[in-house]
Amino acid sequence: MNGDAFDPDCPTRLILDRIGDKWSVLVVLSLRGGPRRFTELRDAIGGVTPKVLTQTLRAMARDGLLTRHVFAEVPPRVEYELTPLGQSLHAPIQAVADWAESHVNEVMAARQAAG
Amino acid sequence: MNGDAFDPDCPTRLILDRIGDKWSVLVVLSLRGGPRRFTELRDAIGGVTPKVLTQTLRAMARDGLLTRHVFAEVPPRVEYELTPLGQSLHAPIQAVADWAESHVNEVMAARQAAG
Repeated sequence: MNGDAFDPDCPTRLILDRIGDKWSVLVVLSLRGGPRRFTELRDAIGGVTPKVLTQTLRAMARDGLLTRHVFAEVPPRVEYELTPLGQSLHAPIQAVADWAESHVNEVMAARQAAG
Repeated sequence: MNGDAFDPDCPTRLILDRIGDKWSVLVVLSLRGGPRRFTELRDAIGGVTPKVLTQTLRAMARDGLLTRHVFAEVPPRVEYELTPLGQSLHAPIQAVADWAESHVNEVMAARQAAG
């Protein structure tokens, strides 16, 4: 049974909060090409603090959107990878990111005009 | 020139915050069919407080996504309507909302399994 974003009691609202979060958006976009390490993600997503990135990755893992692999090496290697559920989220997220990138000037001009 | 969501100094990040906000998402979806009054929006979007709805509408107007029309009637009638820029945002927003509604059970199951 599908959810209903307009129903205040439907958990869809919680999902919208998760996938609407800009750090989650940037993680999904960053993992599109395959698994990446924490430091690779941190470097790719400019401006994210390790604490926020850790919280975002943990929350997305809890939501089944990505997995955290620990390779038994010395030192241990940790990689994050989108699950099939996470991969299915890429298209709508890319559409939102594309809209933001291609309309940023119009929105900023409107903000300036609004004073 | 397009923005870059991965650049921490690019205003695209501000746009992602705006359009990622669940109340903005629900306003765009609600205004898809044409102009609506404040009370119609408030009733359509269950659980939104008048204060949050007012703030969301004001911020979206500042961003050029919708306009607020005041009709000189007694009592005055006020309607909100998506601008062409706001209409162009509908498709990516609908894609995100559709994903959330059709995957809510999988995400909630993952959350339950994660404990």
